[in-house]
Amino acid sequence: MISPKIEGFLWEQEETFLTPADKLAVIIDSHNIDHAKLLLSHMTFSRVPVVTVDNCFVGTIGLNEINQYQMDNELSDQELNQDISLICKRDVATLKGDYELADVLRKLIDEPFLPVLGEKDEFQGIITRKSILKAVNSLFHNFDIVEKKK
Amino acid sequence: MISPKIEGFLWEQEETFLTPADKLAVIIDSHNIDHAKLLLSHMTFSRVPVVTVDNCFVGTIGLNEINQYQMDNELSDQELNQDISLICKRDVATLKGDYELADVLRKLIDEPFLPVLGEKDEFQGIITRKSILKAVNSLFHNFDIVEKKK
Repeated sequence: MISPKIEGFLWEQEETFLTPADKLAVIIDSHNIDHAKLLLSHMTFSRVPVVTVDNCFVGTIGLNEINQYQMDNELSDQELNQDISLICKRDVATLKGDYELADVLRKLIDEPFLPVLGEKDEFQGIITRKSILKAVNSLFHNFDIVEKKK
Repeated sequence: MISPKIEGFLWEQEETFLTPADKLAVIIDSHNIDHAKLLLSHMTFSRVPVVTVDNCFVGTIGLNEINQYQMDNELSDQELNQDISLICKRDVATLKGDYELADVLRKLIDEPFLPVLGEKDEFQGIITRKSILKAVNSLFHNFDIVEKKK
């Protein structure tokens, strides 16, 4: 259990820590793997969400999967003309729109970012370790801590 | 300023959030780029520290730099037989052994992990966003917050 006061402060920062889908680089599942490789190699991060053309969440794709696939099958960049959906990672932790903060904090220990999905898996945005750390940093500079009441 | 009580709690977790060098995958700067590519493609993370054979910190290497270098120069994997030091990222934020926690929290907003270095740049270990979030999570479950005294 996280105290209501901590939750309250963090919720006030939701606008900062939830990055909406329209401000994110995403990749369409039917695009080619070489497209994803080019995009990811020129970004500062190395994994992005994969969605359908109708904005349904499919999974995530990282340079790890792409390079592994290419090396294991001895493919040139020109031969990476297959759908990203073939190799993208599907067993990723996600959040529903009505997520709880304790859940966010727990799941972010294992994942660098969490996709937030609507009722029908519509991709709404992501919450990253980076953005939560920003909110935590702000909390630490503005509050002190006391033992929890039992 | 972070309150002494928050700092105190976090310091108690140092053993958990500082991963010592001997428990980490690192890459030697004089090894070949293809070695780094193979290693990184089969890991779950995509960037690791680069050190000299004498354990001096040089920088970090990620799949982004390797793929970019390979694509820009149209090189096959066999042609990646050059030193990692040629392309590794050197302008990375680091911490000295006597680091302050406020510094750690601030720098981790921009970097997924921070190398901790000794007086002569000896590589001692890293602090990651993941490990700090673990400590924060524990703090949030054990304490409540109050307004800071002015």
